[in-house]
Amino acid sequence: MKVDSKKIDGFLVKLLTRVGENLRSDSIQKMSVATKKNRNDLVTNFDKKTEKFINGEIKQAYPEATIVSEEGYGDLVKDMSGLVFFVDPIDGTMNFVKRGDNFASMIGVYIDGEPLIGAIIDVMDNEIYHGGKEIGLFVNDKKIDDPKNLPLVEGLVDVSAPMALSNRFSVQDVIKKSSGFRVYGSAGIIFGHLLTGKEVMYMSYLAPWDLAAGRVMCEAVGMSVVGIDDAPLNMLKSQVVIVGTQKVVSEALETLKTR
Amino acid sequence: MKVDSKKIDGFLVKLLTRVGENLRSDSIQKMSVATKKNRNDLVTNFDKKTEKFINGEIKQAYPEATIVSEEGYGDLVKDMSGLVFFVDPIDGTMNFVKRGDNFASMIGVYIDGEPLIGAIIDVMDNEIYHGGKEIGLFVNDKKIDDPKNLPLVEGLVDVSAPMALSNRFSVQDVIKKSSGFRVYGSAGIIFGHLLTGKEVMYMSYLAPWDLAAGRVMCEAVGMSVVGIDDAPLNMLKSQVVIVGTQKVVSEALETLKTR
Repeated sequence: MKVDSKKIDGFLVKLLTRVGENLRSDSIQKMSVATKKNRNDLVTNFDKKTEKFINGEIKQAYPEATIVSEEGYGDLVKDMSGLVFFVDPIDGTMNFVKRGDNFASMIGVYIDGEPLIGAIIDVMDNEIYHGGKEIGLFVNDKKIDDPKNLPLVEGLVDVSAPMALSNRFSVQDVIKKSSGFRVYGSAGIIFGHLLTGKEVMYMSYLAPWDLAAGRVMCEAVGMSVVGIDDAPLNMLKSQVVIVGTQKVVSEALETLKTR
Repeated sequence: MKVDSKKIDGFLVKLLTRVGENLRSDSIQKMSVATKKNRNDLVTNFDKKTEKFINGEIKQAYPEATIVSEEGYGDLVKDMSGLVFFVDPIDGTMNFVKRGDNFASMIGVYIDGEPLIGAIIDVMDNEIYHGGKEIGLFVNDKKIDDPKNLPLVEGLVDVSAPMALSNRFSVQDVIKKSSGFRVYGSAGIIFGHLLTGKEVMYMSYLAPWDLAAGRVMCEAVGMSVVGIDDAPLNMLKSQVVIVGTQKVVSEALETLKTR
């Protein structure tokens, strides 16, 4: 299957620009919040409305594509053949609801299982990270250089709060070898930090729509994106994921205790 | 002793505006980094240069004042009588060095031991939080409303990484009752989040210059700032501090295990 990745990139940037405008202008007064799996798993009317909008635009521009998305407006996707779009309308919903900053909207595009193009908007900062292996990586219109391949001792790491606090896989041993520990609470925001060298590792349990866009972009700048025990990623299920510079991911895999 | 708190506030805002301009324009190429107590306790030439500048300006404008500051250009202050300025030239030095964002410069002013005026600049966002009980609280020129007195279950909490990861005082029990856990790595940045209602609690081991400005401003908007076991604060030593909405601090004090 032949696709024009530059054209898809342009489509995603245009689409996320509109999503950002909508989310910044929609009055927070109109927010209604509900819980999903537990009291801290939130969904708002904006998550649903935004996903409906994004998926509609994708279906119009790429009718042959299938969509894997968080809030129920996607397709039942059973394999990765053809053009697959992963959509997370609002990533970091808790930040969106409680803080009003550090939340993102993300779209990752894969072709026959291969990462093609990713795009993430930091909504409040109005910065769109986008691109892929073929066309390179950008923040808005500005080309990003590949981040340095720093070792653990020279960088900050972000690990999901539940994993870090419970010391799952002895992840605190990894944290202790780093420059320091940060928790931002949104995969999309953290992918932006990794792409610009502000942090050197992220580890969390991620759903397909949490991972898809960030994976495309991090791999495009030479970072490693792996499952626990270096397992290959399955883009159609949730899994523990380690993302970081090649040096850091290799140090983390050596340090983590997984059995 | 009689002082004009509005005038001091204006002086601090003008001073931190210049500090922000200097730190944003100084080329990061010229940074030299050294370690202090351990490999993750950093100090740069900018910390020292900035403190020297701030302290010089204070001494010129308020020659009668004494200064408690981080990098050695202050006075040996043995009691809180008269006008005392607390200066942290760069708070979140690790963020400054590794990320280039989320670091602050802070000045807190006390008169005969009483909190008077505080000012914190989020350097990269160019936002100055400033004010006190008498004159009210502002972000740049904009008045801030007192944050809502939310309970733990409705807000995000920031606890210093070492304390949270080691579960000191069983602080993870407090975290579990909240909406979620964040780690930003700079007291000054986190005070900004508390003042604008983005987070409801911060707990950390703080030196006088880490605490002074934030304490003035948080108390001015009705938040609680206490030591562990509700102990009174001693502004001339380092101590564990809990800052948050009145409801949250009271819940935290009930939940923490301190013996």
